[in-house]
Amino acid sequence: MSNSIGTVYRFTVWGQSHSPAIGVTVEGIPAGTQIDTALLQEFLDRRKPGGDPLTTARKEEDEPEFIAGVIRDDAGGSRILTACGAPVTAVIRNLDARSGDYEGSRYIPRPGHADLAAMAKYGDARDHAGGGQFSGRMTAPLCIAGGIALQLLERLGIVIAARPVRIGGKTEPDRMRQAVEAAKAEGDSVGGIVECVIDGVPAGVGEPMFDGLENRIAQAVFGIPAVKGIEFGSGFAGAQLRGSENNDPFVLLPGQGTDITARVGTDTNNHGGSLGGLSSGMPIVFRAAFKPTPSIAKEQDSVDIRTGEKVRLSLKGRFDPCVALRAVPAVEAAAAAALYDLIRLREA
Amino acid sequence: MSNSIGTVYRFTVWGQSHSPAIGVTVEGIPAGTQIDTALLQEFLDRRKPGGDPLTTARKEEDEPEFIAGVIRDDAGGSRILTACGAPVTAVIRNLDARSGDYEGSRYIPRPGHADLAAMAKYGDARDHAGGGQFSGRMTAPLCIAGGIALQLLERLGIVIAARPVRIGGKTEPDRMRQAVEAAKAEGDSVGGIVECVIDGVPAGVGEPMFDGLENRIAQAVFGIPAVKGIEFGSGFAGAQLRGSENNDPFVLLPGQGTDITARVGTDTNNHGGSLGGLSSGMPIVFRAAFKPTPSIAKEQDSVDIRTGEKVRLSLKGRFDPCVALRAVPAVEAAAAAALYDLIRLREA
Amino acid sequence: MSNSIGTVYRFTVWGQSHSPAIGVTVEGIPAGTQIDTALLQEFLDRRKPGGDPLTTARKEEDEPEFIAGVIRDDAGGSRILTACGAPVTAVIRNLDARSGDYEGSRYIPRPGHADLAAMAKYGDARDHAGGGQFSGRMTAPLCIAGGIALQLLERLGIVIAARPVRIGGKTEPDRMRQAVEAAKAEGDSVGGIVECVIDGVPAGVGEPMFDGLENRIAQAVFGIPAVKGIEFGSGFAGAQLRGSENNDPFVLLPGQGTDITARVGTDTNNHGGSLGGLSSGMPIVFRAAFKPTPSIAKEQDSVDIRTGEKVRLSLKGRFDPCVALRAVPAVEAAAAAALYDLIRLREA
Amino acid sequence: MSNSIGTVYRFTVWGQSHSPAIGVTVEGIPAGTQIDTALLQEFLDRRKPGGDPLTTARKEEDEPEFIAGVIRDDAGGSRILTACGAPVTAVIRNLDARSGDYEGSRYIPRPGHADLAAMAKYGDARDHAGGGQFSGRMTAPLCIAGGIALQLLERLGIVIAARPVRIGGKTEPDRMRQAVEAAKAEGDSVGGIVECVIDGVPAGVGEPMFDGLENRIAQAVFGIPAVKGIEFGSGFAGAQLRGSENNDPFVLLPGQGTDITARVGTDTNNHGGSLGGLSSGMPIVFRAAFKPTPSIAKEQDSVDIRTGEKVRLSLKGRFDPCVALRAVPAVEAAAAAALYDLIRLREA
Repeated sequence: MSNSIGTVYRFTVWGQSHSPAIGVTVEGIPAGTQIDTALLQEFLDRRKPGGDPLTTARKEEDEPEFIAGVIRDDAGGSRILTACGAPVTAVIRNLDARSGDYEGSRYIPRPGHADLAAMAKYGDARDHAGGGQFSGRMTAPLCIAGGIALQLLERLGIVIAARPVRIGGKTEPDRMRQAVEAAKAEGDSVGGIVECVIDGVPAGVGEPMFDGLENRIAQAVFGIPAVKGIEFGSGFAGAQLRGSENNDPFVLLPGQGTDITARVGTDTNNHGGSLGGLSSGMPIVFRAAFKPTPSIAKEQDSVDIRTGEKVRLSLKGRFDPCVALRAVPAVEAAAAAALYDLIRLREA
Repeated sequence: MSNSIGTVYRFTVWGQSHSPAIGVTVEGIPAGTQIDTALLQEFLDRRKPGGDPLTTARKEEDEPEFIAGVIRDDAGGSRILTACGAPVTAVIRNLDARSGDYEGSRYIPRPGHADLAAMAKYGDARDHAGGGQFSGRMTAPLCIAGGIALQLLERLGIVIAARPVRIGGKTEPDRMRQAVEAAKAEGDSVGGIVECVIDGVPAGVGEPMFDGLENRIAQAVFGIPAVKGIEFGSGFAGAQLRGSENNDPFVLLPGQGTDITARVGTDTNNHGGSLGGLSSGMPIVFRAAFKPTPSIAKEQDSVDIRTGEKVRLSLKGRFDPCVALRAVPAVEAAAAAALYDLIRLREA
Repeated sequence: MSNSIGTVYRFTVWGQSHSPAIGVTVEGIPAGTQIDTALLQEFLDRRKPGGDPLTTARKEEDEPEFIAGVIRDDAGGSRILTACGAPVTAVIRNLDARSGDYEGSRYIPRPGHADLAAMAKYGDARDHAGGGQFSGRMTAPLCIAGGIALQLLERLGIVIAARPVRIGGKTEPDRMRQAVEAAKAEGDSVGGIVECVIDGVPAGVGEPMFDGLENRIAQAVFGIPAVKGIEFGSGFAGAQLRGSENNDPFVLLPGQGTDITARVGTDTNNHGGSLGGLSSGMPIVFRAAFKPTPSIAKEQDSVDIRTGEKVRLSLKGRFDPCVALRAVPAVEAAAAAALYDLIRLREA
Repeated sequence: MSNSIGTVYRFTVWGQSHSPAIGVTVEGIPAGTQIDTALLQEFLDRRKPGGDPLTTARKEEDEPEFIAGVIRDDAGGSRILTACGAPVTAVIRNLDARSGDYEGSRYIPRPGHADLAAMAKYGDARDHAGGGQFSGRMTAPLCIAGGIALQLLERLGIVIAARPVRIGGKTEPDRMRQAVEAAKAEGDSVGGIVECVIDGVPAGVGEPMFDGLENRIAQAVFGIPAVKGIEFGSGFAGAQLRGSENNDPFVLLPGQGTDITARVGTDTNNHGGSLGGLSSGMPIVFRAAFKPTPSIAKEQDSVDIRTGEKVRLSLKGRFDPCVALRAVPAVEAAAAAALYDLIRLREA
């Protein structure tokens, strides 16, 4: 239930950080859809640890094996897979899983992590290693489902692109980099804000009230670990404005076509492409706030839940100083999956 | 589909601003539940136009009639209704619907409203009057479903309280009031931020990944018109911090009881009561950003979609200078419904 | 949850036999859809008590009032309602509710009814009068949702027609009538089998495994009280055949058109229009088995659940000697709603 | 979507007859649940081809590998797996997949199979080999999800047992065997009826209207290939009876306990343990009708969809002369999964 999302384009993510494998099953990929696995791998590699020296050093290949729902196009080499209409399942084996790194904190919840909550919910049976099902590793299957949605959307002329706009409080690229390195050097971490822009969505996509663009995108994006906030358009800043300042007046955009409604847009975009939960035709813009990675080398206070004793916790292992940077493709993936499902619902 | 939300405690909102009636059907209220209708009416009245001189002047009684799913407790007067286990339906008749106020803009989308998107989605058949199904009036049925959830949660020791924390950029009560009055005097509007605190939720509530506290609360809260952002705990501000600053160290809270896990909490609460989407036991805290009411008396630019001509739009009617103030109970209602459903799922 | 069904064309039925009103909310009626209320009323009247002397004598007008989601077409008189794209809610007030008829058996479960199960599930708070939410009366809202679906399907060239094929064991119309009258005269009841044929569905409708034609139609039809079985095509009889007898060989049907697949059909139809849960293009045929009405005047044994004492139960009131006859439109309605949702899913 | 079923105990089946692997992901297994894999394997083996000489000869080991959601209990050997609270995924590799057996009929739909419908729905991209996603092989993943549910139910004192009651029209075991052998010898097949009895379900399980016992069990059972009918209790036979004959009078069953309602039962069981879609406390009894296996060696008529030409089809390969026999565990699995989900919903 909770690991699934979507109505027509619906996927289920499964796995834990140290389970034999992690993966995803996607229902609703139209039969005949060509999945470009090389393009998909490039997309996945944008999140892979080891690539960017600023992110974590755990080595995982993260190359999904498609074990159901596709037919390999031998004519075009092994690059293209064709969906046959049945659910598509992709599996990624966990190779570099060093459980030993985590043994010490089974009964000592790590601040900022799901540990304590998971202890309460699952008890002793929980898979604790590496954060279990709460691990950032679980963005890999999300990126598979979202990566496929991205390809499907692109064929509809819809493009999604996310980028960090504020890291450690800095907005300029060099400063962002310095902020991360400084934190890393001190055994600390920084948070960040990732902005995502979706171009090419025609007006009227989204379903009113609880299945609008914001509802659906938020439900998906909050599925990415470390996300603590989301805003659309002028968001929280717009909440400080007057209506006369925040409203985007309508104008007739340049262009041909007899469908006037399709040519009505706005010069400003405080509404972030969404009005009443439906797309207006303007770019959809949202920002996701990522808290700084909870895993830091610095000592922290915790409690041993077996005894109630205070413990000074010192985490060992390989930590990502800035989850926001690594999660950029995950933000695109989440938005893509949510949006593509709404596009399909509009056709229904 | 889109007007429905929830799994076990599931409700469907229906109606438009000027339809004969609006209402809600709630499934999942346990048989035997006593609904205090007087308490519920007080809750609904907190949103009713005409109450607070700062909000709009449309006169609606907003007294729901329960037409299914309940048995009236005649012994206790008409105040208590007992749920019989079948879906509960409440209806509110629309009395003060002055359709004439809206006729002029059927083909001229109002900036900041869903009009343009609705035109694209529904075409000529859309119910345009008063914003149709996108009207702020539709928070009344939401507040019925959420108001009942609030009563159910209270019996579990869980309390939800929301309040405006920033209106028109101001944080101090008198200044907030002035900001609203000033805007109203100028035929303008202001936005605001509403903070909601949920106390008493034990650790472990919420379902991982896509049905966590943030996902579920966000899905519900974005169903309130004018919401453009949501953040939990330190939210967007936390995104600028270091991990060492944002993490909440764990401590053993004072108290008895042999369940140590239940006594582990935090002194600070940057995580806003949610870790990995599950409750930690600390108060759940979130903030919703409301854009300034799109309907303002000031002239605005728009386009007549029949001709493509630019139009200077001057709205007539009764406008709410600050939707955020009126939506405070809606925020509590949305959070209550979402949380209560998660509480029920935890029992499953 | 349980009172709702469907994905895109989704409706929620609410009400009890003696609640102030019963009704239904339908999501997914496309904006602009014209609902012919006179046609709908004719359809509803096919189930209304008092019409056919062979059915029960309770007098209910069963004229729904549409209170949300539609705009009345004044030009065409009050006959046509246009869906505006928002959920459509129809309400039927319960007028002739004589609660007194049922008081005696609150603690004495009536054989064949849901009473005992409802006692266990809902306890004392259950709405017992007239069978509460389990009453055959609840087929009225189902028929509204299904009646609208029937109109939508007809515009797609799809026709659904059901008829009783076996009543009290008889297959010939006069004998069926006699069987019912004989039972009625003896204060007893008879069961029956209703056959439903759906014409005009193109091949490929339905979703594999758990959302196929059989799964979806069965889920809907079992929502009609008294249904105890369903079979498609040769059904239970086919289970006794050889494959060589039961298989329907494929033939090319007469006709033009370049799409050969669309012209492939079968001369026999043991598969009942469904193969692998998907439509083959041949008429979809199914049969629903209705048990004889549990409410009979004859004395029956039961137990007073307060004391455990054996009780001779003698029901007073107005009973339907043959539910199957009255439920014929409900069967069409259930099939229509299920099928129309699958048609919409095919478009998604 | 369609390959998924359930609300709290929810699983998704994926794979095709000749995909690299088939499998299932199950959400909702409580953390700490011990899955006895040896017991599960015994259950799966009851459906495995090659076991019973009367069924088909395709050799598949069908030993699932659990790759997510479980922790192996090394202390108890490898037999026990403990669910950790995250979704459980099991994979079965397809070993003995001889695609060549099916090539000839890609454009020639096999009578009684989903081929034609799948051609219409999926076009050329469909995975045709072995029936693709419509293959009886797909009952293996269903049996994993259902097999786990069976173990969970057993710990609640609920037992499910199915058996063939009519094969090729015969009811006596030796005659059933002969009927199958005779059919096999002639390159033909026979159908059958499988009866399933569920003991130990307390009264009040099931949700009214569309999520009752019949609705849910039917939705699951129709997910088994070749099922064309389902009936509960006296089913179609009951439809020919009088109410006085079919009603089950209530009696007080022998036993202690102060809860009288729990001791009320019936001596006869025409209602099959279900009243109004809720359990009565009596054994739940239903029968599933299986059509004779469509794949037979005898020649059959079909059409080549490329040319429209009539074709005499002669299938080569390994065919199961009686699907009903092989599907007995699948019937138990489907019922178990459906029932267990309802049991969980009752707790919610």
